[in-house]
Amino acid sequence: MTTTRQIGGAIVDWAFYRDGVRDSSMNSHRAATELAVAGQGFVWIGLHEPTEDEFASIAEDFGLHPLAVEDTVKAYQRPKLERYDQSVFVVLKTVAYVDHDQLTASSEIVTTGEVMVFLGEHFVITVRHGDHGGLATLRRSLEADPERLAQGPSAVLHAVADRIVDHYLEVAEAVQEDIDEIETSVFSPERTRDTARIYHLKREVLELKRAIHPLHLPLRTLAERPIPVVHPKVREYFRDVEDHLHRASDQVVAFDELLSSILQANLAQLSIAANEDMRRITAWAAIIAVPTMIFGLYGMNFTHMPELDWWFGYPLVLVATATLCALLYRRLKRAGWL
Amino acid sequence: MTTTRQIGGAIVDWAFYRDGVRDSSMNSHRAATELAVAGQGFVWIGLHEPTEDEFASIAEDFGLHPLAVEDTVKAYQRPKLERYDQSVFVVLKTVAYVDHDQLTASSEIVTTGEVMVFLGEHFVITVRHGDHGGLATLRRSLEADPERLAQGPSAVLHAVADRIVDHYLEVAEAVQEDIDEIETSVFSPERTRDTARIYHLKREVLELKRAIHPLHLPLRTLAERPIPVVHPKVREYFRDVEDHLHRASDQVVAFDELLSSILQANLAQLSIAANEDMRRITAWAAIIAVPTMIFGLYGMNFTHMPELDWWFGYPLVLVATATLCALLYRRLKRAGWL
Amino acid sequence: MTTTRQIGGAIVDWAFYRDGVRDSSMNSHRAATELAVAGQGFVWIGLHEPTEDEFASIAEDFGLHPLAVEDTVKAYQRPKLERYDQSVFVVLKTVAYVDHDQLTASSEIVTTGEVMVFLGEHFVITVRHGDHGGLATLRRSLEADPERLAQGPSAVLHAVADRIVDHYLEVAEAVQEDIDEIETSVFSPERTRDTARIYHLKREVLELKRAIHPLHLPLRTLAERPIPVVHPKVREYFRDVEDHLHRASDQVVAFDELLSSILQANLAQLSIAANEDMRRITAWAAIIAVPTMIFGLYGMNFTHMPELDWWFGYPLVLVATATLCALLYRRLKRAGWL
Amino acid sequence: MTTTRQIGGAIVDWAFYRDGVRDSSMNSHRAATELAVAGQGFVWIGLHEPTEDEFASIAEDFGLHPLAVEDTVKAYQRPKLERYDQSVFVVLKTVAYVDHDQLTASSEIVTTGEVMVFLGEHFVITVRHGDHGGLATLRRSLEADPERLAQGPSAVLHAVADRIVDHYLEVAEAVQEDIDEIETSVFSPERTRDTARIYHLKREVLELKRAIHPLHLPLRTLAERPIPVVHPKVREYFRDVEDHLHRASDQVVAFDELLSSILQANLAQLSIAANEDMRRITAWAAIIAVPTMIFGLYGMNFTHMPELDWWFGYPLVLVATATLCALLYRRLKRAGWL
Amino acid sequence: MTTTRQIGGAIVDWAFYRDGVRDSSMNSHRAATELAVAGQGFVWIGLHEPTEDEFASIAEDFGLHPLAVEDTVKAYQRPKLERYDQSVFVVLKTVAYVDHDQLTASSEIVTTGEVMVFLGEHFVITVRHGDHGGLATLRRSLEADPERLAQGPSAVLHAVADRIVDHYLEVAEAVQEDIDEIETSVFSPERTRDTARIYHLKREVLELKRAIHPLHLPLRTLAERPIPVVHPKVREYFRDVEDHLHRASDQVVAFDELLSSILQANLAQLSIAANEDMRRITAWAAIIAVPTMIFGLYGMNFTHMPELDWWFGYPLVLVATATLCALLYRRLKRAGWL
Repeated sequence: MTTTRQIGGAIVDWAFYRDGVRDSSMNSHRAATELAVAGQGFVWIGLHEPTEDEFASIAEDFGLHPLAVEDTVKAYQRPKLERYDQSVFVVLKTVAYVDHDQLTASSEIVTTGEVMVFLGEHFVITVRHGDHGGLATLRRSLEADPERLAQGPSAVLHAVADRIVDHYLEVAEAVQEDIDEIETSVFSPERTRDTARIYHLKREVLELKRAIHPLHLPLRTLAERPIPVVHPKVREYFRDVEDHLHRASDQVVAFDELLSSILQANLAQLSIAANEDMRRITAWAAIIAVPTMIFGLYGMNFTHMPELDWWFGYPLVLVATATLCALLYRRLKRAGWL
Repeated sequence: MTTTRQIGGAIVDWAFYRDGVRDSSMNSHRAATELAVAGQGFVWIGLHEPTEDEFASIAEDFGLHPLAVEDTVKAYQRPKLERYDQSVFVVLKTVAYVDHDQLTASSEIVTTGEVMVFLGEHFVITVRHGDHGGLATLRRSLEADPERLAQGPSAVLHAVADRIVDHYLEVAEAVQEDIDEIETSVFSPERTRDTARIYHLKREVLELKRAIHPLHLPLRTLAERPIPVVHPKVREYFRDVEDHLHRASDQVVAFDELLSSILQANLAQLSIAANEDMRRITAWAAIIAVPTMIFGLYGMNFTHMPELDWWFGYPLVLVATATLCALLYRRLKRAGWL
Repeated sequence: MTTTRQIGGAIVDWAFYRDGVRDSSMNSHRAATELAVAGQGFVWIGLHEPTEDEFASIAEDFGLHPLAVEDTVKAYQRPKLERYDQSVFVVLKTVAYVDHDQLTASSEIVTTGEVMVFLGEHFVITVRHGDHGGLATLRRSLEADPERLAQGPSAVLHAVADRIVDHYLEVAEAVQEDIDEIETSVFSPERTRDTARIYHLKREVLELKRAIHPLHLPLRTLAERPIPVVHPKVREYFRDVEDHLHRASDQVVAFDELLSSILQANLAQLSIAANEDMRRITAWAAIIAVPTMIFGLYGMNFTHMPELDWWFGYPLVLVATATLCALLYRRLKRAGWL
Repeated sequence: MTTTRQIGGAIVDWAFYRDGVRDSSMNSHRAATELAVAGQGFVWIGLHEPTEDEFASIAEDFGLHPLAVEDTVKAYQRPKLERYDQSVFVVLKTVAYVDHDQLTASSEIVTTGEVMVFLGEHFVITVRHGDHGGLATLRRSLEADPERLAQGPSAVLHAVADRIVDHYLEVAEAVQEDIDEIETSVFSPERTRDTARIYHLKREVLELKRAIHPLHLPLRTLAERPIPVVHPKVREYFRDVEDHLHRASDQVVAFDELLSSILQANLAQLSIAANEDMRRITAWAAIIAVPTMIFGLYGMNFTHMPELDWWFGYPLVLVATATLCALLYRRLKRAGWL
Repeated sequence: MTTTRQIGGAIVDWAFYRDGVRDSSMNSHRAATELAVAGQGFVWIGLHEPTEDEFASIAEDFGLHPLAVEDTVKAYQRPKLERYDQSVFVVLKTVAYVDHDQLTASSEIVTTGEVMVFLGEHFVITVRHGDHGGLATLRRSLEADPERLAQGPSAVLHAVADRIVDHYLEVAEAVQEDIDEIETSVFSPERTRDTARIYHLKREVLELKRAIHPLHLPLRTLAERPIPVVHPKVREYFRDVEDHLHRASDQVVAFDELLSSILQANLAQLSIAANEDMRRITAWAAIIAVPTMIFGLYGMNFTHMPELDWWFGYPLVLVATATLCALLYRRLKRAGWL
């Protein structure tokens, strides 16, 4: 660990693998690299958000391309694959679903990070940006499978890509649940304020799409084109990852379409709700207008209005008016206006 | 049947075919496989939702690729075709239309399942996921046509694909009827609540699209590229299946567009309905406002209001008011406001 | 004609052409076929909706591919071109515009049928489905042009395709008129109910698109790829047909876009109409509210209300109220509310 | 000119060019053609809407392809390029912007015509359809630049295409102004009726798109593929024309998108306007309801209502009511309801 | 500087670079060019909006293609790359974000300019149009890095493209903030007038898209195809620029989609707001209708209305009415109508 500290606090873990087994006898990754170059195995260094200075010595040790190094230090990259003579540089977007009690208009739903992978014949360097997508458990599970690790650095790249793409599917599943919730809310008889939430989810889905979609090209390249640093057996495993990516992006595209439809359906629901309000309001207005009219009738000042002198005239009018209102109420109730 | 039990309850049926005819003399599929490898015929094993353990021995017997095996055990795959040295792995989505009395906002309309097919020179393994799309009748009808079966395992793959794609067309037909029903409902003079149903159908159509669309690529590959395990005569039959798939996906794409238009037309209909309500309401308000005004007129306390002292003043006003209301009613009725 | 009956009532006409001239000496199409195979000319058989049995003998005589035969007997195919060793099978959608007095929400506007063409070196078989698109006049006009017919069966295919695509353009022209009519209706000051009609037309346009669009690929193949049974001189004529098809499908795509815009414009028009209704209604409500208020004023029971005792108080109030209402009416009229 | 008359009134001008200079010594275009074929120069004949008969002799003289001749006589073609052995046939759509005082719902904005060009090694024939896009000034300016004309017939084709595409840009500029005007109108505080105008402009833009877009393919062919009758130096000039076409079609595509957004924004503006109307109306209703209620209060017939007997009761109520109404008015005014 | 004046005021700066170092000993760019052609280094001339005359002598000196020269003098070009025998001509759109206090419907948000670059083996000429995107600081920073400049003229092209594309990202960031601001405004409970602003931003985003998108093709050409005047080491740096362009155009495409959704969400918000207004209005109308009815009741003129003679009748009614109104108010308040 002392060596690690000297290079920089950004190194999370490093190890030398011989025939797929971790060799703990090394005490510096430089020594390991020298051995690896001699054809003995490979070294895997994992970093988290290194600064330019922290990464400089590693970049020099492994002869990484300056542009790739620059991309590695700056975050917010786009998924891509760059092929150099002796190495490959891959950028992958990691995606995390942020748990939230309730889907509001402002809650963060999807956050993105990056994992950059430098792949050489004798080394693999993984650089992670963002707070999620740690690779420690991945390293452990790989170390438990020496046969796979024995295929060299590209097995690590495959494991990383596989893990990240599987995570896309999980996030898509979670977003699906949010969409289900919004659907229920939009079409529930209760009045809910969904517009902002729908829009917000749409925005997050677009972000997800932008993270996932550009990965197709790098994965196809890894699956179909012979690349020296990618083991042929690993290559056909990338086809599987690409297939999972297809599933994830199919889903995200469908989300996008669904949310557009929900936004429109929401408008229709609002229009229905407004109409119902208007009908309820005016139904009550009609009920109240009837006695007002009748009372006005007997407020007239004609000399000859026999009813006015009947002793039961007043209660009769009251009863008649109340009955009329009740009948009107029942009728409007039945017509669904109240 | 005893052998079958030993392997696992997931095996639905298995048989050995020599020159297209079922040979019932075998008592284990392993023996059958050995004979098949010797060039005598092929074995067809049908499974339903096998667990990892249940499928493991078969995978080993036939040397299936671990990734394909993993895909087979896990359901919810995407249609695809994977080519291996000696075999082909195909995933097909099955689709079933769920009968429902009435199209409501929550009723399931389309359910999907999967059929995975492993195709070797001497074997075909079909694995089914989901409750529909059983292949027993298909096996029987194939066995009734030995000439076709004699073309080998790829004839089975073709029969399965053909059956599944024909089913897409049937489901599309059924969805068409749902759309017709919704159209009638949206444009009927009666007030119906269609927004949720339209949206729901749209969602199901998107699911259908996602099941159908990715099959194009595998089918084109089967129809156009020479694959060792696919009999050349069977290959040109796949062109026909692809053509049917084109018809199904043309229809589904049209459904998608139609439902978007219906959603918008529905909004227009709601707007018309709301306007009609408003006009009816205010027409009644106008009718009631007239007597209220007249009664207010004769409620004034002027000393010199000759009409008030006429003995026929009161009935005159009543009759005049009633006539006025009747005229107004007739006019509004004619104008289409009532 | 006797021979024809024996084969089936589905045969509409048949003839043998030598150097582009109809040879009426044959008394059976089988004899004609034998002669044709000997390199003397070709036979053209035209059928209308044959049953499987009716078509079986012809299929056998000419060695047609079973899948193509199946497609021929079943209607509702998709435009396509299938190439076999010695023959070509082409499916074309025919389209007819159904005359209607008025464009209502339910009137059929576009009906589709099919013409299937089997093309061999010495034969051409045309099979028609649907009530429109009869080929009798086409045959007559071709027979009037022996030079063209002398180019062999592919000249017939070209004539059929040319005729069908020209018909697309005519149908598009007719649909254009329907769209013009709807436009006029939507933007007319009169209140019209256009939503259902717009949607209905959109649906028919989508059907038209589905019939027309898939023909591009077959026509491009006929125009660009050398096919043995297609005469090289005829090939470049297919380029012209393809060009006409481009025009038709450009138009249909534009219809689709236009109808979407009309649907939206219609919504805006409905919104304007609703607002106008609301303004007219409330304008009248305002006019009636004024006398009601004034009459209420003089209905108060204050002891000291000098106006009540003026002998001209009552007529004054009546005149003042009427004047006020008239002024209000004029003002609202000018503001465009009435 | 006499010769011209003999061939038909459709010929607008013709000339023979030797080394880029007009040779006026010829007295018939046939003589000129013979000289041209001998390798001395080329002939350029310009026609306007020739009938079939008028064009027949020219078609024969130059051996034009019958299909191209048919296209030339019939107007309403789609932009295209047809390559024949010794010649090229190009159709271009001309576009003219129709000046209009005001953009109304019915005014024609864009009209289209065609220019067909037959290009051979020694001749160029331009046929114009429609009332705009005359080529006389173009011929004059070309004749003023003998160096360019010396490059042969393809220089004429380039000049025609360049002129037509530049005209697209001018028309696009003019349409841009119409869009600006509509934008101003839609978002102005005044109530304007824009829906029909927006839709109408959209329709014209779609027509423009249909005229412009299909020209990309012919121009790319002219710019990139070696065609015998196109001078290599002229070829790279077509790249420039294609670039201008890109600019025009970029703009037209943007118009299309903008107009869709304006249509939607217009709907929002209508909704805002309707809401404002409703608020103004009901604000006045509230102001009038207050005195009606108060007057009703003092119209009650209770024996013990002390206020009724106050001598200042009546004016007090009047003043109080007026004050209340004034306060209400001010408040609603401030809230933006009036 | 005297030399510069002679050529024209459009020259902003010029210099001769030998091995990446500025050689100030030259006193005319012609002398420098001669030296450069002799293989000693290269000359970089920077101009700003030259007129045709001002640019003519430079165009002649370096043998620039007349079409490229014409494009250079005229502004408003589309991004493109033209390859000539000895040189390359590149047009890039510069984009500037215009600071504004508040996003109104009329404020300019994005302005565009152009930078044209002529690239030869021994020269690079940069021509700038528009008020932003000055290249003086770029020249200085390049001169501070002789190693890079030593790679020749293509290093300058790369630096210019890199700077311009990085600026796209900055502008996209600024537009993102405008979108955030609009989102907040649309979904805030306050009534805001956002339609015009949303539309305006959409229009500016479309302009941005049109400026950015066509650059993909030129950059891909520079990154992938070997071009003689582009140094191989510089070529791979263009891949990086292309990658940044991808990021910018991904963002702009997302803006476009987001703004469409906001426009629709805005419509929904307006509909909600209108409904709320209507409910508030009618709630008050209901509150006022109750006393009006009650007052009418006691305005009736029946002889036998015992309440009228109670001495506490009048205050009782007043209190009862006020209580009723208060209860109604509370209830409507709770229901969210007030």
